[in-house]
Amino acid sequence: MTGILSDWAREFLREDHVAVVSTLNKDGSPQVTTIWYLLREDGTFIMSTPGRTQKVKNLRRDPRIAVCVGDERRSVSLYGTVTVSSDQNVVRRDLEQLAARYIKEEAARAPALSLFLQEGRVALHVKPVKVTEFSLDQGH
Amino acid sequence: MTGILSDWAREFLREDHVAVVSTLNKDGSPQVTTIWYLLREDGTFIMSTPGRTQKVKNLRRDPRIAVCVGDERRSVSLYGTVTVSSDQNVVRRDLEQLAARYIKEEAARAPALSLFLQEGRVALHVKPVKVTEFSLDQGH
Repeated sequence: MTGILSDWAREFLREDHVAVVSTLNKDGSPQVTTIWYLLREDGTFIMSTPGRTQKVKNLRRDPRIAVCVGDERRSVSLYGTVTVSSDQNVVRRDLEQLAARYIKEEAARAPALSLFLQEGRVALHVKPVKVTEFSLDQGH
Repeated sequence: MTGILSDWAREFLREDHVAVVSTLNKDGSPQVTTIWYLLREDGTFIMSTPGRTQKVKNLRRDPRIAVCVGDERRSVSLYGTVTVSSDQNVVRRDLEQLAARYIKEEAARAPALSLFLQEGRVALHVKPVKVTEFSLDQGH
């Protein structure tokens, strides 16, 4: 289970949000982009992105990653190192789960999945080793 | 004017969002948190935070910053170096503008401002030197 996260944070991460991921450019500067994500029951944070993107180039050089999910009242930041996988069975399984989470219209999922699978995607898996949480509603 | 930003991105940044900022820890790893922001007419990106926070410690050591504002359809990432100011006249002016943007209930602004000013806040100003934009609605 996701023992590193508080109950409210785990619930918050399962709501409808996109994450912002930060990776490190070659010169050490931070790079940021939004991304779909999914929190597995075992605490693994799952993302998917085309392998040619800057963030994947960065993560193959330096796997340290920071992920932030937040709104005007709450935020959760997760830190760890990422595993980048090109295994298309893993990529497809993750994409199916991400599509089920983000694409509300069921009929739109299969066409989207088909497009995603043509993008040379990789799977990004993070087991967070550090978490910081902030909530105006939890007395922090 | 904010010539580095496209028209839709400038409009998007003026909507109701919080930003995610990424700074660099001492070991070079990325640190991420959400923050209120304001885009000035001259293109300066304004934020405010207590001076004792990790992100301020990081920015005083290495002023490189990345900021991402995004939702499920659009995102704008801004890059540059930050100016950290402890001048309480600047801090107060910025906080007044941030409170006007984020605190919808006018009567709640003065008490919030009073609390903020007891937090030893600093002003963070960024003139972005690089921007990346993504929109499902703009054919990117």
